[in-house]
Amino acid sequence: MAALQTGFKAHAGGSPVDPGYEMRVRASFDRQNAMRLLGAQLTQQHGYIHAGIVSAIADSAGGYAGFTLFPADASVLTVEYKLNLIAPAAGERLIAEASVVKPGKTLVITRGEVYAEREGARTLCAIMQQTLMVMAGKPDH
Amino acid sequence: MAALQTGFKAHAGGSPVDPGYEMRVRASFDRQNAMRLLGAQLTQQHGYIHAGIVSAIADSAGGYAGFTLFPADASVLTVEYKLNLIAPAAGERLIAEASVVKPGKTLVITRGEVYAEREGARTLCAIMQQTLMVMAGKPDH
Amino acid sequence: MAALQTGFKAHAGGSPVDPGYEMRVRASFDRQNAMRLLGAQLTQQHGYIHAGIVSAIADSAGGYAGFTLFPADASVLTVEYKLNLIAPAAGERLIAEASVVKPGKTLVITRGEVYAEREGARTLCAIMQQTLMVMAGKPDH
Amino acid sequence: MAALQTGFKAHAGGSPVDPGYEMRVRASFDRQNAMRLLGAQLTQQHGYIHAGIVSAIADSAGGYAGFTLFPADASVLTVEYKLNLIAPAAGERLIAEASVVKPGKTLVITRGEVYAEREGARTLCAIMQQTLMVMAGKPDH
Repeated sequence: MAALQTGFKAHAGGSPVDPGYEMRVRASFDRQNAMRLLGAQLTQQHGYIHAGIVSAIADSAGGYAGFTLFPADASVLTVEYKLNLIAPAAGERLIAEASVVKPGKTLVITRGEVYAEREGARTLCAIMQQTLMVMAGKPDH
Repeated sequence: MAALQTGFKAHAGGSPVDPGYEMRVRASFDRQNAMRLLGAQLTQQHGYIHAGIVSAIADSAGGYAGFTLFPADASVLTVEYKLNLIAPAAGERLIAEASVVKPGKTLVITRGEVYAEREGARTLCAIMQQTLMVMAGKPDH
Repeated sequence: MAALQTGFKAHAGGSPVDPGYEMRVRASFDRQNAMRLLGAQLTQQHGYIHAGIVSAIADSAGGYAGFTLFPADASVLTVEYKLNLIAPAAGERLIAEASVVKPGKTLVITRGEVYAEREGARTLCAIMQQTLMVMAGKPDH
Repeated sequence: MAALQTGFKAHAGGSPVDPGYEMRVRASFDRQNAMRLLGAQLTQQHGYIHAGIVSAIADSAGGYAGFTLFPADASVLTVEYKLNLIAPAAGERLIAEASVVKPGKTLVITRGEVYAEREGARTLCAIMQQTLMVMAGKPDH
């Protein structure tokens, strides 16, 4: 069974306003176990990871990248994203990375990439460009 | 548990070149049971259907809309899509519709919408614009 | 020389909050004469209208579609858009239409189409999906 | 009057198949003088460079990035792109950069950025993600 990892990194230009952001992000991530369920059931079809998973972790990585820069009482909403699927996702592991291109009080713009890892080698499977909305005063539960 | 429906319709301008297209589409759809698994496990979180599902069925509806117009020996590949999430997907049922805006020998352009149905009332949750590639000579299995 | 028309229509679901919206939109449009300059100089190359023009009027039509629904003291900003170019824009006239799919206090989502008209026949050249931001308290000048 | 520069760079992973590609790209660029006309007339409004220009040079930079990797007898067509406008384009100079993320025989995927330069300082104004089509056997004139 394939494992699914979702990575995120914050843009060098922005810095987290909430010192407890890492704990906050991890807590949110633990609550959201959708990715694991998706991973368990869908990754084994024909040896390829379903495009729906690729899309979901790209979106998710972007959301978490933005979330790191948010104030403690805000949650994140995906306004929209665009995804190019550029290679089949084949491998034991799927890794999504995203970074904030433009932080903002209302909107945050991110970019992300999804890689499939097979026997240690990474293949770029998808690239994403995304708009997030900061939901101020609505903490994530 | 929420049911998931994926609808598709072909653009009036194009007509299927393969007379057996409906059977072909249904057979492909039966093989792909990912949607049902997704539906069973993810739709119950907080009463909202996960954005990953909304995205996956939008993409899927677009793919099937294109597929109806393909020759019998071709399969479909999503090149890219862009999705705007415009309302939370709450309800017992999620319905995706897509139509072909521009058929083509190599590329097919579609648009789609996702609706959530609650007690008979539909809410528009997401809109999509998508580019598909016709994989000629590679039938779908 | 080709004429350039930019049409807009508001979504049936939303209704203008500012009764003077039509005058307001036309005044804004008159101030913005970029389209006419673009039209005069770029439409004659090779008989095709430059893709930059197709894109600019698609974006512009979406912006005006949203603008019709805004309060009188707000201006509009394009957050992002995605454009599929589906046929070369050849003809004497280029027409963009857009409508609001989802009105909102902060964000407005639109869709648009661009047509080229040659000897009375219209060809669909491009389709667009767009996110606008309402700049409240910042009237357009 | 503002000058307009359009930069391009090829992805490290791909290498030009046509040794005369630089001359070919420059020749094409000289034929296409649309950018200069746009620059001359539109950049002076309110001190901001029109969003239509930002979009046009982003698309153009992506197209040239792809074009560098094409065979000598092929031309390039923009299938679609998605653009996030993230800051107003104010300055004396507008610079677009794009690179090929995924080369291909039929489709090429690029990403690009547009910067405005004012008194030597660059501001990121827009980011783009784009799909190009290789028109084999149709050289650019």
